[in-house]
Amino acid sequence: MKRILISKTRKLIGEKVKLAGWVSARRDHGKLIFIDLRDRSGIIQTVVIPDKEEAYEAAKKIRHEYAIEMEGSVKERPSGAANQELTVGNVELEVEKIKILSKIEEDLPVDISEKEMKLNLETLLNYRSLTLRNERINLIFKVYSELLRLYGEFMRKEGFLEIKTPKILSSATEGGANFFKIKYFDRDAYLAQSPQFYKQAGVGIFERVFEVGTVFRAEPHFTTRHVNEYVSLDAEMGFIDSFEDIMNQLEKTVSFMFGSIKENCAKELENYGAEISGFKTIPRIKLTEALSVLENKFGKKTEKIDIDPEGERMICEWAKKEYNSDLIFLTHYPSNIRPFYTMPSADPQYTESFDLLFRGVEIATGGQRIHDLSQLKENMKKHKFNPEDFKSYLDIFRYGMPPHGGWGLGSERMLQKILGLKSIKEAVLFPRDVKRLAP
Amino acid sequence: MKRILISKTRKLIGEKVKLAGWVSARRDHGKLIFIDLRDRSGIIQTVVIPDKEEAYEAAKKIRHEYAIEMEGSVKERPSGAANQELTVGNVELEVEKIKILSKIEEDLPVDISEKEMKLNLETLLNYRSLTLRNERINLIFKVYSELLRLYGEFMRKEGFLEIKTPKILSSATEGGANFFKIKYFDRDAYLAQSPQFYKQAGVGIFERVFEVGTVFRAEPHFTTRHVNEYVSLDAEMGFIDSFEDIMNQLEKTVSFMFGSIKENCAKELENYGAEISGFKTIPRIKLTEALSVLENKFGKKTEKIDIDPEGERMICEWAKKEYNSDLIFLTHYPSNIRPFYTMPSADPQYTESFDLLFRGVEIATGGQRIHDLSQLKENMKKHKFNPEDFKSYLDIFRYGMPPHGGWGLGSERMLQKILGLKSIKEAVLFPRDVKRLAP
Repeated sequence: MKRILISKTRKLIGEKVKLAGWVSARRDHGKLIFIDLRDRSGIIQTVVIPDKEEAYEAAKKIRHEYAIEMEGSVKERPSGAANQELTVGNVELEVEKIKILSKIEEDLPVDISEKEMKLNLETLLNYRSLTLRNERINLIFKVYSELLRLYGEFMRKEGFLEIKTPKILSSATEGGANFFKIKYFDRDAYLAQSPQFYKQAGVGIFERVFEVGTVFRAEPHFTTRHVNEYVSLDAEMGFIDSFEDIMNQLEKTVSFMFGSIKENCAKELENYGAEISGFKTIPRIKLTEALSVLENKFGKKTEKIDIDPEGERMICEWAKKEYNSDLIFLTHYPSNIRPFYTMPSADPQYTESFDLLFRGVEIATGGQRIHDLSQLKENMKKHKFNPEDFKSYLDIFRYGMPPHGGWGLGSERMLQKILGLKSIKEAVLFPRDVKRLAP
Repeated sequence: MKRILISKTRKLIGEKVKLAGWVSARRDHGKLIFIDLRDRSGIIQTVVIPDKEEAYEAAKKIRHEYAIEMEGSVKERPSGAANQELTVGNVELEVEKIKILSKIEEDLPVDISEKEMKLNLETLLNYRSLTLRNERINLIFKVYSELLRLYGEFMRKEGFLEIKTPKILSSATEGGANFFKIKYFDRDAYLAQSPQFYKQAGVGIFERVFEVGTVFRAEPHFTTRHVNEYVSLDAEMGFIDSFEDIMNQLEKTVSFMFGSIKENCAKELENYGAEISGFKTIPRIKLTEALSVLENKFGKKTEKIDIDPEGERMICEWAKKEYNSDLIFLTHYPSNIRPFYTMPSADPQYTESFDLLFRGVEIATGGQRIHDLSQLKENMKKHKFNPEDFKSYLDIFRYGMPPHGGWGLGSERMLQKILGLKSIKEAVLFPRDVKRLAP
């Protein structure tokens, strides 16, 4: 007999079926043994009766999280006994055969059958391959898979081509100190912090490109919003009229993703008590205006024209009150805190750039890039870089590079803030931080 | 006026439009200047007449690959003058305004307007951001984008969850010498050769997972089928009955991808003179049988039970004749040339493993994995590994790990062989090899 998914049993009352999955719960009522079986499609209650001797003997020994196979008949549960909490609460399996596929080696170090696991983050991550089986935690990554799908779907619809760019670079460009160094055969190389230069090259070829790829940041941060390896949802587009075009495109993209998540992941959002609202536009204010708001409404003064994490939280709080918006664009960051390739504004102290904040955290950063070769070289020098070190990057601009720009959107931060997770590490399957390289 | 795509002009005869793109060709006929304008949607012929003085002056100076914007009226071309080679051969633009967005700095080092560029691979790659604009080369990456999309679409349809796993590992496991070493803060770490351990963990959580991700191989190879960084299409599935289930799943996946590429990329395939045929099944033979074929039909003897690249080419040639199949599974590789986690066959000298060959090259490798903890530890020791070094990997197997297996499918090799490209490097936007880290 071929194994079927638990969710299919709903409509197979009276039929013999074979199921497989993990033991989520086991209740020994003396005569009857109840086993809740869980597979990727849901959970079903199964009943083992003493008459089925072999199955009954097996059921006595079975413990939580054993992987097992079961054959039996699907029975309708009396309507009073239907369990709304189970995926297929209207039926149960009357077990005839049990095959143990894989046991557990010792007692489970954590109880993953709890609705909401109250473990500290370290424990949660140390037993990751077990804690991820918890139904609630599991849901996080169903939303994530959907989020990845939606990004690709929308970008293609908007005429963006999916590309994959190299993650090993010959030099630590973009000027950060935050590059991981690697030994590449007989020389040194670096891990990409972003696909920036390559997606710009992509514009010169395909006009519109997007990439879903891992990026690496050697930042020694210990916060709830940093990991050292994350998946960036990048895009870059050519023939723009101004950097507003980029914000418009990102706005449409996030609007589509949120609207679809709301619809397609309703169950997951409900479980997390999470709400996301559809929207048409995202408010846009200049960074300097945001700093005035911080000073006037929150009494927070800043010395430099820049915003810190606390300021970002406050501005989001303000945007929620002022515009009833979970999202806000801050624009026109000063040129001295943006990379050398950022397009200067009419007032060259500022740039045609933006950050997108969502519920207190920056989830995307972007802007228009300089497309004129000599302007780019000049700006490099202003930023204390030597154009000689950027030969292959500069080549892109020698053959008719149109006005362009794009963004990098942090997929895990977006997920974290959609579900209201405390730390970004909860939004990563196997997170990497300064101290953690395992599991 | 808002810019529209060239492909839209087909149905806008008589209308005023604004277009933007690159100059693909320019023909100065004394009175009339013809400019072929190219954007991501296609190419259109435009005509500039002396009456439009400013535009005419601009058109005189314009050179190939300038990025420009044009306004004008869409005119139907007399049916005799229609150019079937252009995307919108039925219309042309009568230009009124031209705006130069970006010039070229010097003469183009290579002529990218040729139908088929006859450059050696090094030149092709050195001027990558320019050569990729060539219409024919460009097509490669449209097929690639589609290939990535199709893999995701099919895997989801089959109940696989998309995951993203870490690329930085604490130890160079899986036992290869071919790991790149990185400096991770105050310690050493390694770049992942494959998501193997993490996708197996994924099975214990989600049953079925897939990943599209970059992997890194420090192999000092100089061949037409190796690059040191590539995008692997991975999958892993639990609750299998035998390793045939994995081959069945991979067969369905590749069949879907080929069928859809044939349909959705007909133009691209035609340009490359490439044909791919639909299929239902892929022939499967044991590696030892393949070696007999090599000896009997090709006079090629091998000392070890293993197959080299020449043997793979021959077997594919044979499969084409014998089964009229471009694909063939070789199965049951000896355990001494497979990783320690590979499930042994009934005869433990062999394993429940396979390679999938396509037109002379291995494009996928996979098999069933050991799911029993003590068997796994024993097998590690046989392969001269110390289970102590694999603590967090072994944790996966302590809590009910079902029978499982999966594959890694090389996306660029698949693309290379679909289009009949000579080197895999032509199938990578910006390839990385032992010597090349730029552009």
